[in-house]
Amino acid sequence: MSTDAADLPLEDRARLLTGADFWTTAAAPGVPSIVLTDGPHGVRRQLGASDHLGLNASAPATCFPPAVAVGSSWNPEVARRIGEAVAVEGRALGVSVILGPGVNIKRHPLCGRNFEYYSEDPLLAGALGAALVQGQQSRGAGASVKHFALNNQETERMRVSVDADPRTVREIYLPAFEQIVREAAPATVMCSYNRIGGVYASQNHWLLTSLLREEWAYEGLVVSDWGAVHDPVAAVRAGLDLEMPHDPTSTERVLAAVAAGDLDEGTVTRAAQRVIDLARWAPSDDEPAPDLEAHHRLAREVAAECAVLLRNEHAALPLGAGSGSVAVIGELARIPRYQGGGSSHINATRVDVPLDEIVARAEELGIPTEFAAGYTLDGDDAGHGDDHALHAEAVGTAARAGTAVIFAGLTEAEESEGFDRPDLRIASRQVDLIRAAAAAASRTVVVLVGGGVVELESWHDEVDAILEAFLLGQGGGAAIADLLFGLAEPSGRLAETIPRTIEQTPAFGTFPGELGTVRYGEGLLVGYRWYTTRGITPRYPFGHGLSYTDVVVDDLAVAVTGPDTATARVRVRNTGDRAGKHVVQLYVGGEAGPVFRPRRSLAAFRKVALGPGESTTVELDLPRRAFAYWDARRNDWVVAGGAYRIEVGRSSEDIDGAAQIELDGDVIVERLDMDSTIAEWAAHPVAGEGFRAALTGSVGGMSVDQLLELAGSMPLGKALDMLPGPAGAEARAGLEAAIAAQ
Amino acid sequence: MSTDAADLPLEDRARLLTGADFWTTAAAPGVPSIVLTDGPHGVRRQLGASDHLGLNASAPATCFPPAVAVGSSWNPEVARRIGEAVAVEGRALGVSVILGPGVNIKRHPLCGRNFEYYSEDPLLAGALGAALVQGQQSRGAGASVKHFALNNQETERMRVSVDADPRTVREIYLPAFEQIVREAAPATVMCSYNRIGGVYASQNHWLLTSLLREEWAYEGLVVSDWGAVHDPVAAVRAGLDLEMPHDPTSTERVLAAVAAGDLDEGTVTRAAQRVIDLARWAPSDDEPAPDLEAHHRLAREVAAECAVLLRNEHAALPLGAGSGSVAVIGELARIPRYQGGGSSHINATRVDVPLDEIVARAEELGIPTEFAAGYTLDGDDAGHGDDHALHAEAVGTAARAGTAVIFAGLTEAEESEGFDRPDLRIASRQVDLIRAAAAAASRTVVVLVGGGVVELESWHDEVDAILEAFLLGQGGGAAIADLLFGLAEPSGRLAETIPRTIEQTPAFGTFPGELGTVRYGEGLLVGYRWYTTRGITPRYPFGHGLSYTDVVVDDLAVAVTGPDTATARVRVRNTGDRAGKHVVQLYVGGEAGPVFRPRRSLAAFRKVALGPGESTTVELDLPRRAFAYWDARRNDWVVAGGAYRIEVGRSSEDIDGAAQIELDGDVIVERLDMDSTIAEWAAHPVAGEGFRAALTGSVGGMSVDQLLELAGSMPLGKALDMLPGPAGAEARAGLEAAIAAQ
Repeated sequence: MSTDAADLPLEDRARLLTGADFWTTAAAPGVPSIVLTDGPHGVRRQLGASDHLGLNASAPATCFPPAVAVGSSWNPEVARRIGEAVAVEGRALGVSVILGPGVNIKRHPLCGRNFEYYSEDPLLAGALGAALVQGQQSRGAGASVKHFALNNQETERMRVSVDADPRTVREIYLPAFEQIVREAAPATVMCSYNRIGGVYASQNHWLLTSLLREEWAYEGLVVSDWGAVHDPVAAVRAGLDLEMPHDPTSTERVLAAVAAGDLDEGTVTRAAQRVIDLARWAPSDDEPAPDLEAHHRLAREVAAECAVLLRNEHAALPLGAGSGSVAVIGELARIPRYQGGGSSHINATRVDVPLDEIVARAEELGIPTEFAAGYTLDGDDAGHGDDHALHAEAVGTAARAGTAVIFAGLTEAEESEGFDRPDLRIASRQVDLIRAAAAAASRTVVVLVGGGVVELESWHDEVDAILEAFLLGQGGGAAIADLLFGLAEPSGRLAETIPRTIEQTPAFGTFPGELGTVRYGEGLLVGYRWYTTRGITPRYPFGHGLSYTDVVVDDLAVAVTGPDTATARVRVRNTGDRAGKHVVQLYVGGEAGPVFRPRRSLAAFRKVALGPGESTTVELDLPRRAFAYWDARRNDWVVAGGAYRIEVGRSSEDIDGAAQIELDGDVIVERLDMDSTIAEWAAHPVAGEGFRAALTGSVGGMSVDQLLELAGSMPLGKALDMLPGPAGAEARAGLEAAIAAQ
Repeated sequence: MSTDAADLPLEDRARLLTGADFWTTAAAPGVPSIVLTDGPHGVRRQLGASDHLGLNASAPATCFPPAVAVGSSWNPEVARRIGEAVAVEGRALGVSVILGPGVNIKRHPLCGRNFEYYSEDPLLAGALGAALVQGQQSRGAGASVKHFALNNQETERMRVSVDADPRTVREIYLPAFEQIVREAAPATVMCSYNRIGGVYASQNHWLLTSLLREEWAYEGLVVSDWGAVHDPVAAVRAGLDLEMPHDPTSTERVLAAVAAGDLDEGTVTRAAQRVIDLARWAPSDDEPAPDLEAHHRLAREVAAECAVLLRNEHAALPLGAGSGSVAVIGELARIPRYQGGGSSHINATRVDVPLDEIVARAEELGIPTEFAAGYTLDGDDAGHGDDHALHAEAVGTAARAGTAVIFAGLTEAEESEGFDRPDLRIASRQVDLIRAAAAAASRTVVVLVGGGVVELESWHDEVDAILEAFLLGQGGGAAIADLLFGLAEPSGRLAETIPRTIEQTPAFGTFPGELGTVRYGEGLLVGYRWYTTRGITPRYPFGHGLSYTDVVVDDLAVAVTGPDTATARVRVRNTGDRAGKHVVQLYVGGEAGPVFRPRRSLAAFRKVALGPGESTTVELDLPRRAFAYWDARRNDWVVAGGAYRIEVGRSSEDIDGAAQIELDGDVIVERLDMDSTIAEWAAHPVAGEGFRAALTGSVGGMSVDQLLELAGSMPLGKALDMLPGPAGAEARAGLEAAIAAQ
């Protein structure tokens, strides 16, 4: 049974509000210190004494696919199983809380930390994040959903102030957090570094208290991102419970503020109690050792579900007897990238190397292979003597092969936590190699690696197939080989749009902001919402991903189940001769209500596995939130009555079927007053008729329609101001009586 | 010599602060009442008693081209000459102040009042508005630059709150006002109806006092738009001088507020003095009668300079001997549109009808003509029996003709002050007629009329020539005929982009806002700034317009004339065999400084007339403002040192030449402090070297570059917080000394 904070001296309570050092909470009489550590695609438990930036080597742990890959799985089970395994490893390493998942929205493809985030869509991010938290916490390790909130870039991340309108904040940037808080009760929420409307997230009362505690009823602990607190007293007052890492000034300042009456002691007590309660996640001293072999197999298995087959002309994939000899090209096949840089970097227990795995699969099938590095991975993109030789050798290798499999993508130096990418390009030497090898080879397959999407335009049409492997964790090498040879079926779908150019991206020009502020000018039109609504064609749309089999989706039927809910049912048939998985994507759109809406928004999804020739019916609920908009004036969600379009698609641009429904929506009685316009009065279902009659003949020579056209937008009170004295006063008195009688 | 307000009793002073009725100011002992009335492309002097909405019939006056046309002239002389003529007519009608020009930026093509505004570009709008004010005031009628500010739509215009970022406000929406205030000293500035950041413009102290009076040193009078004041006391306090029309509550409320100490009496006195001083614009009782014949000729002459020849394939224009017989088609040729609806509507002295004028010109040349109405102008776009017959007759007429000249465009009912258009389309019956007639005719010319740009995609490629005539005033019919037959040379240029679709427009989705707010999400990227920067191809770009002759532009040379100024020189040669006018357009772009910039921004322009074979050199100054950005943090204009690209173009997309210059820019010494990031310290030209040396080895195993990559965005103070006690304190003390020593 945990200690009651109220029983501790105030000084002990205050001491609990910051860490004891970089990774541990403070202890107090009856209160153990616990360990928090980075995650979430593996445990980063630092060995020995933590250095002051927390960057020393960490204990070996399984490196599962990072969020960029899990997002592309479109499968909450993948997230859940990773969470379970990571929790087991964490407890064995003495860790109570593993920091993650990161569910920030990928506002812009250049965000350097996109590899740690799931998607540009809040529903997808929320579903995957909730599953990870549930999985992790079901095996006894607390989670930390982060970075709360509106932390969508690395540039100036510790100072930048986000300027986003309330509807965009509610409909795009908060729902994943909200869903996870409500459905998965994460042990902790981690506030972000940035400011929101000028106020640091760590010191933002609206964010940490009004929204998180009062609206969402969150009962866990709020921890700061490491170093996010500027004023410990302001942070505690705003609703922060635990400042990390250890802040030598915190305790003294908190005590002084309480003594001065600037900080309520009850607030300190509540925060201390949450720190005390967090100790329930503490592992025992004899946690079982994890089965690292099994975890490696799991890492391989889930990795295969995360890669996205973008293109596959002339059935270039899967490789097989008809592929001829295989030339594996590219240093990234031999020195794989499988995770991102920064605080989430895992010391993997082992790493499957794509080249080795491909060679092994090919040998089993009797397919000859060759390898050529093609380029080096050092940071300089200028031509080297070395690279010229490597390039020529690789092109020669490609020319001899039946199929060239070229590994390309972003290097370690090009992306990491801490900075944003400057552009969408991969190294020009890689592009040159792809083009030259594709021209020389009979068939060309490109395997792309990296934590973010990249520009494909300059070589896309010249290759036959593209497998977007992102960062797949330590089992990724085997997974890629399995996918290339058809030993696993590709089933990933893009969780973010791949643009054609940087200029066509929604936040172009406002990312990463300037002079201390970033303005989310594109508003709701983030990711595919931008492309579909504006009719801009990206390179590959959100939700896109091919299989080796063929799937037919039909018979969409949508039933209204309430004033603001519906259920959709659709048939999915595997008409090909291979097993496969299909992701049913339901989008909602429509013109109902007084607000502008994106052309389509993801409202539900499910990934289904189907054997050859197999068929199934998928039923998905469309809850109230699928139709609701955030009404900034009412400060509440509203479902407008009217028509909604439900579409089932295999991507945000490739729609298999559509249905229309009518919802009653919320019953809202609009009260008229003197600030209501003439047009609003004239259109009112009750008062309108009499009002229009009263207008008739009121202005010499004008019909009511003409009057409404010219002056309809005028508030009635203003119009009455212009009526000559007694007539105006009389009309005003009559209308005021009518207003009062409503 | 005018009365001194301080000599009047307070009650008299207070009474001066609102009108005596709809169109006149209040009188006081020694203070005459004066008349203000709508403009600015003609005088709308109401006859007899004003009704309470000011919409009764007005005295005949010359209807000059409205602002949409003047904008397309790209010629300040056109604006100046209109201003002069209108002033003469106004004084003869007893008017002191003619309300205009409207210089709001055309944020979106659907704004219902765009016909009253000049351009999507602030420099062009400011230059034309300043010339009109100078012309008008040089002949003794005060002007009123309006609607100040950020009034860029009609929807909810009396309540909507504009949410725009400070840099956008300063660089896009305010410069035209600023230029006119500074260069032309308008007698009055009219505040707008809308709210800015929640505060009504009429009651906005920042707008009316801090900006207008203190920054821009404006000394004239601020008048409210008619009915824009909600709280007369708040308005006077904010800097409003004159509430219009008569507000029966105003005087009493102002007196009560002064008595209660809520309003400074000196503020009342200053406002009253400005009303008194406005009487210096009062005409005498014996103003000379204007020469209405000469004004009609002027209206014709300037109209011909405003129409824009968008397309002219196969030299379809000018019409001549080779054109064969001419079929004039479209009811809009017979019932012309030549001005917009609403408060600016002029009772024209006479109207040139395009059909009559074309027939007359053709007769002189011996070219036979036929006419067919083709469609009716009533509001209903559904098919009529009448219309079917008219359509068939018109197509038959076109089939018989050598050239079909089809008039099409927006009807009176489709656009006006008071509402925004719902879409970019013209009536489908007109589109159907254009397509059918174009299919039947040998050659097809379309003359477009209307106050706003319209969608052309559905028929554009099927016709040979398009003359965009917008609304050309009462002489427009003759001007159109002159242009069609080559008796005048087309020289108009688009002052606003013609988009291909509504979805590609910059404000799509945020115009006209929702739930009481309109968010200017596109920021700086208004008009051509959007299309050029994002690489989106519109139907016709800003600045586009053809001539009947050929012009070559070359030899661009740019000389730097100071740290923040330059002069550009370019040669313009008429290489054709006809006279013509060319508009030299200079655009500035570049990457200098810490802010994002549009691809190109208009920085200077000049329209030059050239006879056949003639050549000239145009020299244009590029002032400081051409290079400056608004620094929202410093609250000031800044010219960044660095490279700038100067381009000369014949439109925003058709560039004839470019030059690069280096400017020193402003000398700004950045002070470092504890909130400066590690990267800023490391990069500092003075402190950087020592700082980087101090970093070396500070974090185990990391190079300085690695450290900067991961933690460069961390404020130094935050980083020091993480240093263990004594070392951190020592480092902090050393740095604080360095900071203090700066």
